[in-house]
Amino acid sequence: MEINLRHDKTHKHFERISGRVKWMNILIKNAIILPLAEEDTPLEDMRVAVEKNVIKYIGEIPADFAAEKVIDAKGGLLMPGLVDAHTHVAMSLLRNYADDLPLMEWLRTRIWPAEEKLTGEDVYWGSLLGMAELIKSGVTCFSDMYFFMEQTARAVEEAGIRAVLARGLMDSDEGGEKRIQEAINFYESWNNGAGGRIRVMAGPHSPYTCSPKYLSRVIELAKELDTGIHIHISESAHEVEQSFNKYGKSPVRHLHDLGMFDVPTVAAHCVHLCDDDIDILAENNVSIVYNPTSNLKLANGFAPVEKMRKKGVNVALGTDGPSSNNNLNMFEEIHIAAVINKSVNNDATSVPAVFAVKMATVNGAKALGMDEEIGSIEIGKKADLIIIDTHKPHFCPGHNAISALAYSAQAADVKTVIADGEIVMEDYEIKTIDIERIMFEAERIARNLFSK
Amino acid sequence: MEINLRHDKTHKHFERISGRVKWMNILIKNAIILPLAEEDTPLEDMRVAVEKNVIKYIGEIPADFAAEKVIDAKGGLLMPGLVDAHTHVAMSLLRNYADDLPLMEWLRTRIWPAEEKLTGEDVYWGSLLGMAELIKSGVTCFSDMYFFMEQTARAVEEAGIRAVLARGLMDSDEGGEKRIQEAINFYESWNNGAGGRIRVMAGPHSPYTCSPKYLSRVIELAKELDTGIHIHISESAHEVEQSFNKYGKSPVRHLHDLGMFDVPTVAAHCVHLCDDDIDILAENNVSIVYNPTSNLKLANGFAPVEKMRKKGVNVALGTDGPSSNNNLNMFEEIHIAAVINKSVNNDATSVPAVFAVKMATVNGAKALGMDEEIGSIEIGKKADLIIIDTHKPHFCPGHNAISALAYSAQAADVKTVIADGEIVMEDYEIKTIDIERIMFEAERIARNLFSK
Repeated sequence: MEINLRHDKTHKHFERISGRVKWMNILIKNAIILPLAEEDTPLEDMRVAVEKNVIKYIGEIPADFAAEKVIDAKGGLLMPGLVDAHTHVAMSLLRNYADDLPLMEWLRTRIWPAEEKLTGEDVYWGSLLGMAELIKSGVTCFSDMYFFMEQTARAVEEAGIRAVLARGLMDSDEGGEKRIQEAINFYESWNNGAGGRIRVMAGPHSPYTCSPKYLSRVIELAKELDTGIHIHISESAHEVEQSFNKYGKSPVRHLHDLGMFDVPTVAAHCVHLCDDDIDILAENNVSIVYNPTSNLKLANGFAPVEKMRKKGVNVALGTDGPSSNNNLNMFEEIHIAAVINKSVNNDATSVPAVFAVKMATVNGAKALGMDEEIGSIEIGKKADLIIIDTHKPHFCPGHNAISALAYSAQAADVKTVIADGEIVMEDYEIKTIDIERIMFEAERIARNLFSK
Repeated sequence: MEINLRHDKTHKHFERISGRVKWMNILIKNAIILPLAEEDTPLEDMRVAVEKNVIKYIGEIPADFAAEKVIDAKGGLLMPGLVDAHTHVAMSLLRNYADDLPLMEWLRTRIWPAEEKLTGEDVYWGSLLGMAELIKSGVTCFSDMYFFMEQTARAVEEAGIRAVLARGLMDSDEGGEKRIQEAINFYESWNNGAGGRIRVMAGPHSPYTCSPKYLSRVIELAKELDTGIHIHISESAHEVEQSFNKYGKSPVRHLHDLGMFDVPTVAAHCVHLCDDDIDILAENNVSIVYNPTSNLKLANGFAPVEKMRKKGVNVALGTDGPSSNNNLNMFEEIHIAAVINKSVNNDATSVPAVFAVKMATVNGAKALGMDEEIGSIEIGKKADLIIIDTHKPHFCPGHNAISALAYSAQAADVKTVIADGEIVMEDYEIKTIDIERIMFEAERIARNLFSK
């Protein structure tokens, strides 16, 4: 707990957060449970008991379990909290600000100039806004890459969910060295922070914004810190073409040759891959994060999800930042992932519903190196749980719970969210952070930002 | 009003419906209005006055307008009700019952055998269930093709929304003649029924389930009745191949040569079209209905929406039946339409947000021959209006209202629905039909249906 003490000194918010009554013994009853563990079959009319931040019992609950809080989940589906494995939550401030543009034009003319004006305080409020949306969509863990990451960490601490954070690194300008120093400081201050809810990874932005030398430096750093790498790979056809022109090989092969995949790596996008790339990813246990909405919207194309699935690559799911999406709605990503790959492969059995749901849960947990702790409902795992209210016309009649999740559900069906054993949303109301204040501040910041 | 009197005699439900207080003078204030008329720009802080079933004033409201009901739309977006231009609402009973299967296998082994068991009463409750979902998603008008259509009409009368209904026609078995007789009876009983909210079209199922002779018969019938045709065209590659084998031409050319397009035609799907087909559709003012989720899910592929748009074909949007989708969520269709076509065309400017929203409103109205009455907010048009609650994190900050609708919104953001001047949903609560009863009956029917 040494690191938490350090927070105590540096973050004035920590005390207040520490002060809130976090854990109670929780009993959830009358649930249909979708464990997403070894068995895919839902369990009916079951009970789950949570003690501190852990799932203590499933099914029969011993008589001496003293529930301090009982949640009646009748008409609901209890499932693991969703994992948004690639996003930039603070970009919520730029939501719906610039659309219907190609990736590089969108980045160069709209996003990067706006981002230059962002302050740490802006990133703090933007992160809280993003987390409010994540909680309302049933996400209990997200993986983020951005700057002013200590502000996002502060926001995670308050919001109560789990996050894997990476300070974005690039040396395409002269700030490369400074960024690495910030990343080291950030790791030292925040890895295992917020009571263990925050993990810190190394975040080289991409092979096209980082030189080979810089990438090697970051790989060494990740090894020293004994952490993973979160990077964008092969998002656009242009990026791949550029890599062949510059290095004579694909981005995946380039990074592999630099030794990146000796470190546990989470590769966002991976839209434009050749068969050789997929083999490299499979052999090196690289997890990829599929971001269907963002890829489609920026005209980057269709990631070869079914091919990766069949070759055993671990495919997680993400929203990407809310400015290229334009929301943080994992149910939308699940739905699109489940339907679109059938037409991409001309095969209606591609990416079946259960795989789409697993991409958003267990596969996400695995990508982040946390599959022993989260991603499914099993005794001893962390209590990251959500209840979907299925007593609504679009879930009726109740034929198949997994189909219903993949094809019928909306984010707004998430009724209750438990993260790390704490009830962060109950009956659609967020308990940890003040939505009205957050929306007010976000509007204020956006108005200033775009009038500058 | 002669037809309504006829209903009075034959439909015992009508009296009760007639008895409900339908119209009040309604004043909607503090709205941001998205008229979707000639101007795309939202109008801020405006007022709209509704008298009977008509939009009477926009902007300045005369002092002598006596509002009997005032709706404060602060924090909301007022837009035209959505038009779901192709569905089979009663198939809600088969939702999530059979997924991850190809079109023909899905139809032959799952859907058609289940449909054989459906009774009129089942279709009535299934239709009500579908309409409950449509209302909650902001749909005020839908176009449907199915059987036991008088049961769907009864349900429309009660639900309060608008519908264009077609008794599905085919002669692939010996029931062809009987179906035509039912279609004529249905037209006589229900065209302009429910106070003018119901229109009846001719509904030949498809060129592969109807012989050329039968199709000619239906075309003549549509001409006699002075109504339009609602048909499925070129949904799968297999259907197109079959048409070339049998008739030596594409389904579009085949139907054109039979004279179908002399009648106003709404063509659902149109996924597999050659350039010649698109020219025929454009020249003959055929409206097509794009059903992205259903096409993607059944592995039918990507309709050439951008090409049709550029050639001036009127493209409307639909959900298709809730068993191949598996919901009736037009916001999901708008979202997918807006993002996917960018990657299909490798061009991030394809199907811009405003076009996606228009597909679901004005274009749908045009497809159904009702663009002078519905589809936009204009003085004199029918009051089919919805209010989106945008005071939520995923709409914050409020940069661009049309982007927000296409990229950020969920169906569950629809707060209030006015159809034909009647408030059918207010503050998320449906006023016209009893959702609890409907879900109870749908569950009962589904349990019986699949235990037979």
